[in-house]
Amino acid sequence: MSDSPPPTARAEVVNAVKNALATHGYAGLTTKKVAAESEKSEAFFFYHYDTKDDLVVAFLDWAIEHNRDQLSALDDDPVTRLYDALDFLVGDPADDVDRGINVAMMELLSHAPHNERFHERLTAYEASVIELFVDIVEEGIARGQFEEVDAHDVASYLVVTANGTAGAAMALGMHDVDAGVRRELDRYLRTNVLAPGVTPPEGVLVP
Amino acid sequence: MSDSPPPTARAEVVNAVKNALATHGYAGLTTKKVAAESEKSEAFFFYHYDTKDDLVVAFLDWAIEHNRDQLSALDDDPVTRLYDALDFLVGDPADDVDRGINVAMMELLSHAPHNERFHERLTAYEASVIELFVDIVEEGIARGQFEEVDAHDVASYLVVTANGTAGAAMALGMHDVDAGVRRELDRYLRTNVLAPGVTPPEGVLVP
Repeated sequence: MSDSPPPTARAEVVNAVKNALATHGYAGLTTKKVAAESEKSEAFFFYHYDTKDDLVVAFLDWAIEHNRDQLSALDDDPVTRLYDALDFLVGDPADDVDRGINVAMMELLSHAPHNERFHERLTAYEASVIELFVDIVEEGIARGQFEEVDAHDVASYLVVTANGTAGAAMALGMHDVDAGVRRELDRYLRTNVLAPGVTPPEGVLVP
Repeated sequence: MSDSPPPTARAEVVNAVKNALATHGYAGLTTKKVAAESEKSEAFFFYHYDTKDDLVVAFLDWAIEHNRDQLSALDDDPVTRLYDALDFLVGDPADDVDRGINVAMMELLSHAPHNERFHERLTAYEASVIELFVDIVEEGIARGQFEEVDAHDVASYLVVTANGTAGAAMALGMHDVDAGVRRELDRYLRTNVLAPGVTPPEGVLVP
């Protein structure tokens, strides 16, 4: 990579890459399309980023930080945090940018076996999201709000299920699948994770 | 597309596309690489298939039939069928071809929003797999082996969870995630789907 852009410009770059990925996917991404989503010229991008993958890596590094911040800033109560975090992770298929980003992340994941830089970032990202759910589950057990479950198994299971909605619900637009998954996730959490008598927040995860 | 190849050649073509996709992914696929996986010459492929996407569509059409046949041929008992079907769908990250195909399917899914032919085939595929699980669940309820669950919600949820393992477990090689998901899927099925007293087959899904 050439010289990194200053921090204020970085935010603009990341936002442009995000929107370009959401619209065109990784395969359709070009520096020209990224520049079209920003106030900066194409020359600016070429000055700071040698390749399309440099732009994507800059976006991934930001996305990992950003999602971690978003998820860490959630309500302190483990039950509310669990539902809010899952709702965030399942994503909103009606939101075009959210949908585009989820599908683009799936595309980048599919390149991970052939792309060491993507592999490194995406593994760090998945591990950090799972760790965040482990923390929520352990806190819920400690407070007696959750059953004595295996926190890592539950966390892995929830993250994988949320990731899986990107295929049928986001990429294919099968909205009934999204609705069914949300209802069944809620049923699983009530039966297998929450302690008896503990009720989840209303209107989160299941509208 | 040009003239379709005869049925015996079709099987060879599909196998070559499958292995080439497993090794190189969709982005890295070329007719040359497909031909390298087969006894046929590159000229044979160019004669029958105009573009790379024609080869991929031929593979998808076959994969839909094949997976439906595989899943339909499973044991007649709903409990055993449910576990066998899920085990098949979650896939085996230690099997390179299975892993490659799962990751390639994820890549093709990510192209569905921009590729009408992939979108059509993949939607038909996902719908048929969900329908197969709906049939298993309804049969299990009718025989009193399953709880009175919403068959479509449960089917969607199981298929999405299985799909989701392609990301962390298959593309990133996070094997502990695969193991945790299998254990938690088993716990979910025992608690939320199987009727009290019904036990799943041993060694399936959870080794």
